[in-house]
Amino acid sequence: MSKIGWAALPELDRRSIVPLYRQIYEQLRSAILSGTLPESARLPPERLMAGSLNVNRSTIVHAYRELAADGLIAQRVGSGSRVAQRGARAERGVAVPWWVTLPPWRVGEFPNILGELAAKHEDGRISFVQGVAPDEPSPLGELAQSFARVARDPRFVLSYGDSEGYAPLREAIAERMAARGASAVQARNVIMLTGSTQGIMIVAQSLAEPGDEIIVESPSYPGALQIFQICGLRAIPVPVDDDGMRVDHVEAVLRTRRPRFIYTMPSLHNPTNATMNPDRRARLTTIARRAGVPIVEDDPYGPLVRDAVPLIASAPDSVVYISTFSKTIAPSLRVGWLVAPRVVVERLLLRKQAHDMATSLYVQAAIVDYLDRGYDAHVEDLHRELFARRALADAAIAEHWPRTVRVAAPRGGFYLWATTPREIRARALLDAAERRGASFLFGEAFYAGNGGDHQFRLALTAVKREEIAEGIARIGEAIASLRT
Amino acid sequence: MSKIGWAALPELDRRSIVPLYRQIYEQLRSAILSGTLPESARLPPERLMAGSLNVNRSTIVHAYRELAADGLIAQRVGSGSRVAQRGARAERGVAVPWWVTLPPWRVGEFPNILGELAAKHEDGRISFVQGVAPDEPSPLGELAQSFARVARDPRFVLSYGDSEGYAPLREAIAERMAARGASAVQARNVIMLTGSTQGIMIVAQSLAEPGDEIIVESPSYPGALQIFQICGLRAIPVPVDDDGMRVDHVEAVLRTRRPRFIYTMPSLHNPTNATMNPDRRARLTTIARRAGVPIVEDDPYGPLVRDAVPLIASAPDSVVYISTFSKTIAPSLRVGWLVAPRVVVERLLLRKQAHDMATSLYVQAAIVDYLDRGYDAHVEDLHRELFARRALADAAIAEHWPRTVRVAAPRGGFYLWATTPREIRARALLDAAERRGASFLFGEAFYAGNGGDHQFRLALTAVKREEIAEGIARIGEAIASLRT
Repeated sequence: MSKIGWAALPELDRRSIVPLYRQIYEQLRSAILSGTLPESARLPPERLMAGSLNVNRSTIVHAYRELAADGLIAQRVGSGSRVAQRGARAERGVAVPWWVTLPPWRVGEFPNILGELAAKHEDGRISFVQGVAPDEPSPLGELAQSFARVARDPRFVLSYGDSEGYAPLREAIAERMAARGASAVQARNVIMLTGSTQGIMIVAQSLAEPGDEIIVESPSYPGALQIFQICGLRAIPVPVDDDGMRVDHVEAVLRTRRPRFIYTMPSLHNPTNATMNPDRRARLTTIARRAGVPIVEDDPYGPLVRDAVPLIASAPDSVVYISTFSKTIAPSLRVGWLVAPRVVVERLLLRKQAHDMATSLYVQAAIVDYLDRGYDAHVEDLHRELFARRALADAAIAEHWPRTVRVAAPRGGFYLWATTPREIRARALLDAAERRGASFLFGEAFYAGNGGDHQFRLALTAVKREEIAEGIARIGEAIASLRT
Repeated sequence: MSKIGWAALPELDRRSIVPLYRQIYEQLRSAILSGTLPESARLPPERLMAGSLNVNRSTIVHAYRELAADGLIAQRVGSGSRVAQRGARAERGVAVPWWVTLPPWRVGEFPNILGELAAKHEDGRISFVQGVAPDEPSPLGELAQSFARVARDPRFVLSYGDSEGYAPLREAIAERMAARGASAVQARNVIMLTGSTQGIMIVAQSLAEPGDEIIVESPSYPGALQIFQICGLRAIPVPVDDDGMRVDHVEAVLRTRRPRFIYTMPSLHNPTNATMNPDRRARLTTIARRAGVPIVEDDPYGPLVRDAVPLIASAPDSVVYISTFSKTIAPSLRVGWLVAPRVVVERLLLRKQAHDMATSLYVQAAIVDYLDRGYDAHVEDLHRELFARRALADAAIAEHWPRTVRVAAPRGGFYLWATTPREIRARALLDAAERRGASFLFGEAFYAGNGGDHQFRLALTAVKREEIAEGIARIGEAIASLRT
C-alpha cells in the first residue's frame, strides 16, 4: 500500500480480472482484520479516496458499502466512515441481508420488457401484447398424436440427448432450409435451441464482449435489445423502412466503425412487418462479407414468407441464422435452432451446454414426427389466417380510427405497426386504451436509443379472431378521448 | 494520443467498459484510416507498446491481430507490423474469416465435460457416464397420459406462460418442499427453470462477478464447476468426507475471505453419494448466516433421501435452493426449479427471461398432472431400484475387482465413487476399460483444482440393470491388465 497522507491506501492491479472495488474492499478488509487499521480509525472520504486511486467515486462507494455490510466499518452522515468496534461487528453482519451487497445488476436498470412479452393474459382485457401464434388454426390435435407416438420408446425419449440436438430434427431442418434456398446448410451446421431467445443470448455472449459495438435495426425486437443490454453491448441503430433495413446506413457505419455483428430480422420484421427486398439482401451480405462482420439473421417469421430467401443462402460463411418453432407451431414447445459455420457451431455449443445442457429430447422427437405429418398443412393454414386477421383489422381501423393514425403495409405477419399523430403519445394512448380494456406494446420498447414515442404495435395473433374488431374499436375510443 | 518516441500511442481510459485491447484497436484503426499513420509506417513492437501503455502483451497482440484481420496492417516475422498498402486492404479483409478475430473464448480453455455429460450412448459399449434416471421403473406410461390430458386445452397449453413458471406447479412444489421441512417456502419464492443447469448459470451470473471467489465442494458436480469457470469465478475448494462437506473448513475460509456464495450438494452428493449429517447442516447455515454469505443448495437427489431436511428449511433467507425433475422423472423434460427470498427471485427472474423467456408451459402442465397421479409411487419405485442396482454392483465388485479399489458407502444414490490404488491412474484405467467396452467418468472432472487422478465415478443408472455386472467385470479386467 502506498500513501496519500493516509497509511493504508490500497494498491490496484488494473490488469487483474478482479474488479477494482473488490481489490479495494479486500485490502481494507484485511487491514482491518489484521489491526493495521485500528478500531475507530477514520477512512478517507469517498471522493478523496477515488481521486487518489484514480477510480470512479462509485467504485469506492461500492467497496465501503461492502465493508459496512460486513460490520467492519460504520458509516454515519457527517462523520464519514470509521473502523467499527470489534463488539459491534458480529451484530452488524447479521442485521444486513446478503443481497444488499450483490454486485451491480445491469439487468435492473431498464424496463422489464421481456417480462411483458412473456406475461399471461388477464381476463376481460383484449391484449394485443404477445407475439404468439393464433389459437386457430391449432396444431395441437396432430401434435398431441406425435407426442403419443414418440412416447412409445421410453429409454430413448427420456434421456438427455445430444447438446447439439436430436440428429433427425437437425437433418429435417437442414433439408427445409435447403428448400428455401440455403443449399449449403447441413445438419452439422445446426444446433437446436430452447427457443430463439437462447440463441440470441448465446450469440451475444460469444461473438462480442461487454463494451463492443453492434448494429441493430431501429426499431427492433425488444427481447433482443434487452439481451444486448444485459451483455453490455453498445447498439448502433440503423433505420428500417418499407423495404427493410437501410443497408446504405449500414455501409456508412462500416466505413468508420467495426461492430461485432449486424443484428437483423429481414423477413416480416418485428415490429414493422417489413420484408427486406432482394437488392438490399444482396448488398448487405456483400458489404458484411467484405468488412468481415458477421450478420445475425433472426428469422422467426421467415417460414411464413413464400418468396423471401434467407440471407444465409447467399452468404453461409457470414451469417449466424436463428429461427424457432414458436411462431409456426407454438412458443410453449421452446424449441428453436441456430445455423452457423461449423467452426462457430463448435464454439457456440459450449455455451449452449452451460445454459441448459440440451433441449428437451421428448419435444424435439415429437416435432420430427409432426414435421412429417401435419406441419406443412398447418403453416399453409396459418399463412391464410394471418392475412385474414389483417383484413379484419384493416376494416375495423377504417371504421374506428382517424386517418391521421398511419399503419404499416399488410404483408402477412403477426403485427400491425401504427404511428400516431403528433398530439398523441403512444404511452398516453396505452393508458387510455387500458382503461377501456385493450392493451398493446408502446413504441419505445422497440428502440435501443430514443424513438417510438408516437408508435405502437398490435399483435393481431394474440387475441381471438372475433376480438380483433372490438379491440380496435376500444383503441379508437381511446384515440378519440385524447383528441378532444 | 501521447508519445513514446512514437507519434500515435493510444490513450487508455481504464474506467471504461470498453476493453483495453479494443480501445487500442479503435484508436490505431482511426489513425490508419485518417492517414495519421501513413502507409508502410511501422507500429511499435508488441512488447514495447505493452510496456509503454502498462498493459499485458496479450492485449497488444489481440489489438494488432484485429487490425491485421481488417487488412489494415501487415504482420511479418522479423520485420514486425506495418500499416498496409491501401490496395492490399480490401483483399485481406475477404481472406480472413471473421471468426478468427472473435473475442477470447474462456469456455474453450478447458475440457468439454458438459459435452461428455450430455453425450449420447454408443452401441455395444456399457457406458456408466451419464447421470440419468434408470430406464426401469419408467414414468412414461402415466406421463404420456398426462401430456394427452393437458393437450385438451390448446389455447392455454400453446402459449408462452409466465416467466416465473406455471403457478399450479410452483404451488405444488412449495407444498412438497414444506412437507420436507421447508415450511417457509411459498409459490412466490419459486421460479421454474429449464433444468437445474439453467439455475446454476443464472445464480453464478447474478450473485457474483468475474474474479469473485466462491466456495465449492471438492470433488463436486463437473457441470457446475464448468459454469463457474465460464463465469470467471475463482473456486475455493473444501473437502467432502462420508458426512458431507467439511464445514470446519468452510468456517476457516470465512475467517479470512469473503466468497460470494457457498455451492453445496448436501444430499446424495455428486459424485461421492455422501449426505451431510444434521450437525453439519445446522453449523453450515449458522456460519453462513453470520458471515452474510448465501448458500447455493443444489439438491437434484434430495427427493430420493427420506430423512434429509434441506438446508433451506432452517435458513430460508440464506439459501438459494435449486432442484430438478431430471432425476426423479426424466432429464428430457428439462424442468427444474429455484427457491430464494422474494427480493432475490425478482432479480434472478430478469436473467431467466433473457435466457429463454419461460420454461415450456406444455411440459410444466403435464408435470402438474403427473404429480397428482403417478409421481409419488414412481419415486418410491425408483428409491428401491437404486438400492437394488447398488447391491448388484457390490456383488459384482466383490467378484471382479481387487480389494485395493475402494468404493464409497451405498446410500441409495445414482453413483458409485471409487478410488484406485496408487499404481493405477483413473485416466489409464478408463483407456483400458474403453478398449474392453466399458466407460465411466474419471475423477479429475470433479475437481476445480488438482485431484481425482485416482478416482472415478460409475453412474449405475446409466445402463440397463442386467448390464451392471458385465460392465463391472469389464472394468475388473481393465484393472487386472494395469496391475501386471
